[in-house]
Amino acid sequence: MTTPYFDRLEACRRERGSALCVGIDPRIDRIPASLRGPDVRTTLERFGTAVHERTRPHAACWKPQIAFFEAHGLPGLTAFVHIVQTIRSSGGLVIADAKRGDIGSTAEAYAEAFLAPGGDFEADALTINPYLGRDALRPFVEVAAAHGKGLYVLVRTSNPGATDLQERALADGPKVFERVAEMVEELGAPHVSPVTGWSLVGAVVGATSPAALATVREALPRTPFLVPGLGAQGATAADVAAAFRSDGSGAVVNASRSVIHPAASDDDWPEAVTVAAREAAESIHAATAAS
Amino acid sequence: MTTPYFDRLEACRRERGSALCVGIDPRIDRIPASLRGPDVRTTLERFGTAVHERTRPHAACWKPQIAFFEAHGLPGLTAFVHIVQTIRSSGGLVIADAKRGDIGSTAEAYAEAFLAPGGDFEADALTINPYLGRDALRPFVEVAAAHGKGLYVLVRTSNPGATDLQERALADGPKVFERVAEMVEELGAPHVSPVTGWSLVGAVVGATSPAALATVREALPRTPFLVPGLGAQGATAADVAAAFRSDGSGAVVNASRSVIHPAASDDDWPEAVTVAAREAAESIHAATAAS
Repeated sequence: MTTPYFDRLEACRRERGSALCVGIDPRIDRIPASLRGPDVRTTLERFGTAVHERTRPHAACWKPQIAFFEAHGLPGLTAFVHIVQTIRSSGGLVIADAKRGDIGSTAEAYAEAFLAPGGDFEADALTINPYLGRDALRPFVEVAAAHGKGLYVLVRTSNPGATDLQERALADGPKVFERVAEMVEELGAPHVSPVTGWSLVGAVVGATSPAALATVREALPRTPFLVPGLGAQGATAADVAAAFRSDGSGAVVNASRSVIHPAASDDDWPEAVTVAAREAAESIHAATAAS
Repeated sequence: MTTPYFDRLEACRRERGSALCVGIDPRIDRIPASLRGPDVRTTLERFGTAVHERTRPHAACWKPQIAFFEAHGLPGLTAFVHIVQTIRSSGGLVIADAKRGDIGSTAEAYAEAFLAPGGDFEADALTINPYLGRDALRPFVEVAAAHGKGLYVLVRTSNPGATDLQERALADGPKVFERVAEMVEELGAPHVSPVTGWSLVGAVVGATSPAALATVREALPRTPFLVPGLGAQGATAADVAAAFRSDGSGAVVNASRSVIHPAASDDDWPEAVTVAAREAAESIHAATAAS
């Protein structure tokens, strides 16, 4: 039996003393000249593997955002596969940030793509979208459970538009995102690790709304979080403190642009990335220890 | 200036006398032996192009579901690209059914992938997910407007789980899907074709809930619909009538499994697909003419 993803993630977090997730969202025009290759595939591959190398001691996991690879067509997705496989083959954990969601049989196909062993796109965990309801989420849960993978359901995202739908109150009480949180709890309940106590169905809860973060943490004591919004999106390390248990477990905090595209010259890029990752990891650690 | 997608779609519908959208969701184990190739890429390519050939006189557009290709890794996506490009180069219209959705800059990357001219994945229209709110939808609208493309926002889906979230009433009155419908109307309002009167922001509204279909049609008189649920999902042609204007315009109705995997022997598959498409097109036509 494979060790569940969230147990492996917790081991990585302890070992590195870091709850940082490094988001790999490459902006092609910001990639240092020294990493550029003869074609976009090579450039993306060099960049993604360099980010991994430079952040390795300071990150619990990596989260390539597939949109920034898909935008470059098949060569871009070939680079995505290469980066995911390189990180995983060195023992690193990868969250495929693809926010997939569709009706039952189609959800099953997406789950096979990202969570079944041996496929090109196999990752350790996947982000998914709840708009279609529980029957659209269940196939992901089943495939993840079968293979020791993890999921992160979008609950309360970090963008301003989260207020359009997610923050709206339902007639029977909870807000839309709180209703989604209930679905997450229900779907994860049969899949709680006896080792760490974490369910395999995690939640994406943005750091840009600390109030929502605290609400969801209280409602979902055994749901691991993926917390975006740190850095370029404006949230501070203190904003994420509510995502964690008092033992420091329970969440990884994503930083993308502020780590992979730091304000530095091309020559200084490698060192600047390492410094940015280390500082992000330390500030998250300080905030959670102080909470 | 490119002719807007929904104007092109309306021309196709009139020319063929069909509002059928053929969903290309290949189940690999149901592909006839005669179409199987030496590898999964070849098999999918042969199947997808054969479906197009066999349904060409009877369909207004085609909707490959990317999940069923992504499940086969890079070779699967290579087949997806081949099928999309084959259909488009013969003048057929393609809706990429990918249900993408993410925050602003990431949404922009997805929009570039599927809607910008010249990319591997370029289609004529794209399905997108509204859970993240208006700022996550806007980049798609902007890219679509710049290139004469179309969008279909998930409003009320055809699966049973649509009741989990979409059918829930909000405290201030509308149901969640009605609130999404308002967002669709607002985003599309600046982009209404002077020729046909249709906005470039369409809606996915399932045929399995005729009541929801009628509600959304009334609320969104200038929003074109993509209506799934016909055939294998249980809706009848009569159920879709409410999606159309009295002149027969305003929607395409998707049928996938019932057309591409008809109950027929491998030898009879080509003819059975043509017959299934023709019958689906005729029954949709009859239902809308009678409404």
